[in-house]
Amino acid sequence: MTEINLLDIAKRRGFFWPSFEIYGSTAGFYTYGPLGSLLKLRIEKLIRDHYVNKEGCMLIEAPILTPEEPWVASGHVESFTDMNVECQKCGEPYRADHLLEEKTKKSTDGMSMKQVMDGIKKSGVKCPRCGGALGEPYDYNLMFKTYIGPGKNKITGCLRPETAQTTYMPFRRLYELGRKKLPFGVIQLGRSYRNEISPRQGLLRLREFSQAEAQFFMDPQDSKHHKKFDLVKKKMMTVVTKDVQDKEIAMTAGDLVKKKHAGEWIAYYLATSIELFERMGMEGSRLRCRQHRDDERSFYSSDTWDVEFKSETFGRIELVGIASRTDYDLRRHQEVSKQKMTVNVDGREFIPHVIEVAYGVDRPVYTVLESCAKREGDRTYFNFPPTVSPYQVAVFPLVRKDGLPELARQVYNDLNESGFYALYDEGFIGKLYYRQDEAGTPFCVTVDYDTQKDNSVTLRNRDDQKQVRVKISELPGALSMIMQGHMEFSKAGKAVAKPGDAGKGKAKS
Amino acid sequence: MTEINLLDIAKRRGFFWPSFEIYGSTAGFYTYGPLGSLLKLRIEKLIRDHYVNKEGCMLIEAPILTPEEPWVASGHVESFTDMNVECQKCGEPYRADHLLEEKTKKSTDGMSMKQVMDGIKKSGVKCPRCGGALGEPYDYNLMFKTYIGPGKNKITGCLRPETAQTTYMPFRRLYELGRKKLPFGVIQLGRSYRNEISPRQGLLRLREFSQAEAQFFMDPQDSKHHKKFDLVKKKMMTVVTKDVQDKEIAMTAGDLVKKKHAGEWIAYYLATSIELFERMGMEGSRLRCRQHRDDERSFYSSDTWDVEFKSETFGRIELVGIASRTDYDLRRHQEVSKQKMTVNVDGREFIPHVIEVAYGVDRPVYTVLESCAKREGDRTYFNFPPTVSPYQVAVFPLVRKDGLPELARQVYNDLNESGFYALYDEGFIGKLYYRQDEAGTPFCVTVDYDTQKDNSVTLRNRDDQKQVRVKISELPGALSMIMQGHMEFSKAGKAVAKPGDAGKGKAKS
Repeated sequence: MTEINLLDIAKRRGFFWPSFEIYGSTAGFYTYGPLGSLLKLRIEKLIRDHYVNKEGCMLIEAPILTPEEPWVASGHVESFTDMNVECQKCGEPYRADHLLEEKTKKSTDGMSMKQVMDGIKKSGVKCPRCGGALGEPYDYNLMFKTYIGPGKNKITGCLRPETAQTTYMPFRRLYELGRKKLPFGVIQLGRSYRNEISPRQGLLRLREFSQAEAQFFMDPQDSKHHKKFDLVKKKMMTVVTKDVQDKEIAMTAGDLVKKKHAGEWIAYYLATSIELFERMGMEGSRLRCRQHRDDERSFYSSDTWDVEFKSETFGRIELVGIASRTDYDLRRHQEVSKQKMTVNVDGREFIPHVIEVAYGVDRPVYTVLESCAKREGDRTYFNFPPTVSPYQVAVFPLVRKDGLPELARQVYNDLNESGFYALYDEGFIGKLYYRQDEAGTPFCVTVDYDTQKDNSVTLRNRDDQKQVRVKISELPGALSMIMQGHMEFSKAGKAVAKPGDAGKGKAKS
Repeated sequence: MTEINLLDIAKRRGFFWPSFEIYGSTAGFYTYGPLGSLLKLRIEKLIRDHYVNKEGCMLIEAPILTPEEPWVASGHVESFTDMNVECQKCGEPYRADHLLEEKTKKSTDGMSMKQVMDGIKKSGVKCPRCGGALGEPYDYNLMFKTYIGPGKNKITGCLRPETAQTTYMPFRRLYELGRKKLPFGVIQLGRSYRNEISPRQGLLRLREFSQAEAQFFMDPQDSKHHKKFDLVKKKMMTVVTKDVQDKEIAMTAGDLVKKKHAGEWIAYYLATSIELFERMGMEGSRLRCRQHRDDERSFYSSDTWDVEFKSETFGRIELVGIASRTDYDLRRHQEVSKQKMTVNVDGREFIPHVIEVAYGVDRPVYTVLESCAKREGDRTYFNFPPTVSPYQVAVFPLVRKDGLPELARQVYNDLNESGFYALYDEGFIGKLYYRQDEAGTPFCVTVDYDTQKDNSVTLRNRDDQKQVRVKISELPGALSMIMQGHMEFSKAGKAVAKPGDAGKGKAKS
């Protein structure tokens, strides 16, 4: 879909745009507009409902701003850093390793600060912006810091770089709320922060971003089997293992476990995540599971996998990270806080192990857009599934007179009351269809003169532009059935032979 | 309900608790547990759905962390301050005006810094904590500040003290997305921050809190009438006007306007907000509308009202502020950013005026709890309406054997699939009822031996503990009807004459 300028549509139609535009914008911050915030809301709901209802997770909501201790425990204070280098002339900051990579076209993976520094000096990299000389690179901590409270007794505050630690901190309380049973899961959705040196990739690399992170606490002696694994074991996936990173293999979740590439827990959440992404509207063929190489994995993790989306513009985009974090985090909180994190099961005292399933929520907003963008002739539309489309149905009067707007508003109100995300609009019908195509609204309802006679309306399907005539009283039921896949669109009513005025959406923008 | 220790139940049952407990907690930060986060989520949904669906507002989501300029424009950098005074011995900070009020038992409203300083010296107030001498009071800015980006070119960042300005900044974009029509509304939900000097009142005064703020932009020449005002004009409200603050008057929204206490826009959102709070489960008799006095209102506002809840523990709690903000904010952004905020309507160039409806979301979580807490004998329950209760229905097997758990799980799964917030649990039935009463779950379903024979289950009503027998196939429909008020509980099935084992919930905790 390279011919569609996604970022242009996103801005123009109000999905998202760079924040603080009137003050010149600040890199790494985006604002979701009316369509984007609804799309994001529904993606979040899909993830949350899945983990709360289907996986039985507890939902919690902790503050974003925290004292510094938890990040001492987690290691962020010490090592949540990137190599920064600044132009000595204009002050522009850069990721030192990225600059070197761009210059030499070679990977800097695993290079030490000294190696990068030497590389920069040797290759003669200058400031890409003004040509000035670069200073000495240094480790730059990516946490935003502030002070909590006034005066002498104020303490250092940090904007959390991940939700995970804010879920681990109240582990004891959560364990007791779950009546001391293992395993149990907890999910938290919310903002996190990363003071990137020089973020450039729109929604993909934000300084303020949204996450949905689920943590599963378990007895390490009892962590081999996932009780629902059978439900996903036939799920076919594209897989890249840690040892062969340049070869994709198609295999089932069951084979992933049988061939000992991953344990049941990780395989289960890989398969589940792919299903979730598909339900959001991403094409399955663009998704793959990639295992982290041994030299890339965090030191405390015994196994880490990502699900990646293949973008035509940005290459591979990581959508979720699934990691076995062992007992590292809880143990560190126990060490730093001096509070007990052990549990006692049948006389065995141990710190539970954790499997983390960590979704970004901004990236799916982008990848769903990219995956759903379609062009047919001069028509651009997003074929979002009704579960995530910002609006599910739009209602229009054919003309702005003769009582049709009032009648259309009534149909709109009824759909709203029935729980649909509905929208009311007026104007030239072709133009209205065009607008809803670009908003990805799956269904449009037009109220016309016949409606006054027979209480039926024209229902138009976004994807094939087919139209049927449906009784107003049957509209909510029919829409529900179609959306849930229990009814074909064409069966919803009488096919409309001649589209006529409420036609093919050939309007100019 | 003074006999119920709400904060104890809230902590024990996982509604909310002070954050960072393992690190000694930090005043002004709370974590929502499994029940509280669901309750908050549903309160947010109620507000959001109302404004998006019923009021036709656009939804947007802007970053929390911003550059400093917007807060220069709004006046927060200069005057978002409290008077701080610290103990010279132990360093403990205090609100200087509050200390003086406590000592003299007289209001410090409207006092200047100098007057408060003199008052403190004259009355000989010491540090309440250690008895040490107090330092000089000073204006303390309540914004959390940080730096965005590294090195020389970093800029000052602020955690927003309100969502409002982050909605005003993209005004032009929103105006264009709404196709340049006035009036139009925009709502934003999200966190905001206030670095309180010494927060002490739990969820009522947080340093990190959640808001839901709607902004309505309008032509000042066309701001007299609200097109839906007729819908609320008969709504009866308890009112306190700016001139007579110690007298509550009962009057309709219509009379409020007719007697010129408020305009239609403000009266409409006062009435609408009260209806929303009642739908959340707050008793109408505890709610009142209070107009700000002239000496208390912000200088840029031409009229401001609060809806207050009468708490037995905390006195009057402000739940929403409804203010006419004139063209102040947009004009200030135009002045500071040099970007045009005017619109052109029929040749008239003007800056739109704004009516703001600003809800806190943490406070309703508390006031709904307080208003819904009921005690009957040794039974404590929350009579949350099903629209906001964390879970709507809980499903249990009568015993943990003979296939009943499997059957109960199936009923639970079906309810989940039907869109209910359902919960599965096992144990002694009386104890399970007791637990769900304390969680405010309106309905419990018990699967027993008869279920295996006749496919029916016992449905138990939280408020009166009555029980009926309902066919499994009819359960989702019956629950929907009861929840929407279309069916009485007793009509949902055959009354259960003898509660027997699945009895009166007399279990000990």
